[in-house]
Parts: sequence; structure tokens; C-alpha cells
Amino acid sequence: MSLPAVEIWLEYASTYSYLTVARVGKLARERGVILDWQPFFLPPVRDQQNMGFPFPEASAKTAYMWRDLERRARHHGLPYRRPEQYPVNSLQTIRVALLGAREGWCQAFTEEAFRLHWTEGRLIGTDENLHAALRHAGQDPARVVAAASSPENKEALKAQTPRALARGIFGAPSFVVRGELFWGDDRLEDAIDFAVTGA
Amino acid sequence: MSLPAVEIWLEYASTYSYLTVARVGKLARERGVILDWQPFFLPPVRDQQNMGFPFPEASAKTAYMWRDLERRARHHGLPYRRPEQYPVNSLQTIRVALLGAREGWCQAFTEEAFRLHWTEGRLIGTDENLHAALRHAGQDPARVVAAASSPENKEALKAQTPRALARGIFGAPSFVVRGELFWGDDRLEDAIDFAVTGA
Repeated sequence: MSLPAVEIWLEYASTYSYLTVARVGKLARERGVILDWQPFFLPPVRDQQNMGFPFPEASAKTAYMWRDLERRARHHGLPYRRPEQYPVNSLQTIRVALLGAREGWCQAFTEEAFRLHWTEGRLIGTDENLHAALRHAGQDPARVVAAASSPENKEALKAQTPRALARGIFGAPSFVVRGELFWGDDRLEDAIDFAVTGA
Repeated sequence: MSLPAVEIWLEYASTYSYLTVARVGKLARERGVILDWQPFFLPPVRDQQNMGFPFPEASAKTAYMWRDLERRARHHGLPYRRPEQYPVNSLQTIRVALLGAREGWCQAFTEEAFRLHWTEGRLIGTDENLHAALRHAGQDPARVVAAASSPENKEALKAQTPRALARGIFGAPSFVVRGELFWGDDRLEDAIDFAVTGA
């Protein structure tokens, strides 16, 4: 019998996604779940739903998000250092991650790119972060960057938008298990439970 | 030594607030926490922050909210029946609840108004729901409705808007403990933990 799978829809500019990326590998191993990495670019998904950017600068909601994120990192025992820039341009990183999902090294790349961004001040979206995370995942940065920018890979990323919309996705991280959608790091355990037990 | 207190900022049209209202009384008793009920009207609080209505009709986010709410009710073992109308006009109910907070019967009123709305199809905002919940709380509906509509009580409710803004509140339910804000039913336990242990 094959292991149950959880689609993990990730946006590399998403803040709460750090909590998920830092936790999901261990959880999936412990619970016997396959992670089906689905990097996607969130802005067009929200645009098509007439939804704006969720965390406008200088808003109470955004101030709360930073405070809550720090508290949740502590709650989970995760290292945390607030990045100097927000939001970051995540498009190139997501193209690379999507190529990684096809080639089988998405998780190693993603874990390292998020770790560098959220604990070492090396921003996702910069060449420095991208290359370091690729080397960590055993990949040649020059080859991957060229392949990630190919017309085929760009089209593959565009195709993620209607696939996300078909699943009812409007934010990140999101998890999909047998058609059931779970939104936000707070629902990661529920998604895994549903994959394993169906409840 | 006095018991630690949790401010509970409630909007009576808020969906996730059902989960909180149905759970918070038992949690507070078990943990030895005082509940400081703070009914407020959310629309002016969001208007002042240029935030729209969080759950527009026919959006993926709203469809998700209903699915998630049903799942969370089941998770907590709470009865749940989706109300026929959403959103409801909650203003009069909130005026009554605020009077209840001053007079000491807010919790009994609130628990019953939410129970009727979320399990028996008797909508918050209707006279039928209001009167039934008031009688349940041992109050005379005629007296309370008159007092709730007094200029003093209307002003008291308006004054909740700057008080909410001062706390960084942008949604409901919200919890405030010693200046620390917790947003959403998902953070109810964290707020109570913080009140009890300071961590």
C-alpha cells in the first residue's frame, strides 16, 4: 500500500510558511506521509479573486503577524530572526523550487532557503540565498538557474495558478489532502492527521 | 492574590467567535482565569484601518471558512448547524451585551445567544434570539432593550472602537492579556496560558 500524500502549496515570500517548512519534514517522517511539494506564486491567485496583499505596511494586522510569528517560532522551539526586508521578490526562487519538485530536490532546497532567510539574514530572492540553498541540495546553481528560466518551466509555474484556484486556495501555506483544503501553518497537523487517519 | 484576567473582544456577527464562546467558560473555570467581556462592533474598527469585510460572498476564502468552522466544531466536540443567514446585523445584540458586561450577565447572555444562533437556527440580531437569551440570563427583555438603546450605552459602544484600535485589534475574536494581543479562536488556549503562566 502506498503512503498517504499531502500536497503542500508554498509561497516563498510567505512568512508563516517558515513555521511549516521548518516543521513539516520531521512531522511527515514521523507520521509516514509523502509530501507533494507544490511551489506557486500567490499574487496572481489572489488577483484573480480580487484579493489584495494580505499584510500591508504599517497596519495593525501586519504588526500582529510579526508578533505572532515570533511567538509561534518560540512555541515550536524554532530559531527565528526577523528578516530585514518584507516582502521579498520570490518569483525566481519559486521557479527554482518548482524545478526542484520535478527533479526531486525541492524539500532540501526549500528547507535551506527558508533557514537562511529566517535565521541568518540571507534573503530569499537574492542570488546568494538561491545559490547557497542549491548547493546545499546538491545542485549546480548555473544549470538550475538556466533550466528554471526556460519557457517550459515558466509555463509550468503559470499553470500552478489555475491548479491552485481549482483547489480553492487563496493563501499560503495551504495543504490539500484528498480534495480537502487546510489553510495556514496552524492546520498543518490537522492536514497530516487527515492524510493518515481520514479524520 | 487576584485571579489573572483575559479581555475577550467579541463581535456577535463573527463566525469563529462561536467556537470561542462555546469553549471559553469551561476553560476559564478550569484554569482559574477571569473573563473580562468586551463586546464591540467590528466594522468601524476595520473601516478606520481601510480593511474591508473579511468574508465576501462567493469567495474561496469564505467557502473555506465555512468548511473549516464545521471541522473545528467537530474537532472540539461542539454541536454545529450552519445558520441560514450570513452576515447578520449584530449591532443591537452587541449593545445589549455591552450592558450585560457592565451589569455582570454578559457571559450567560452571550453563551445562549450564540448557542441559539449556531445550533437552533435562531439568528443573532433578531428580537426572538435577543429576548430568549436575555430571559436565559435572568433579565427582563423590555428593561434591557430600553437601557441598551440609551444614549449612554450607545456612546459606551462607540468608545469601544478607539479602545480596540489602541490594542491593535483588527478582527474577532481577539484576546488581550497584559497588553499582549492574541487573534482568533486558534489562539484562545495561548491567551489563557499567557494569563496563567506568563509564557
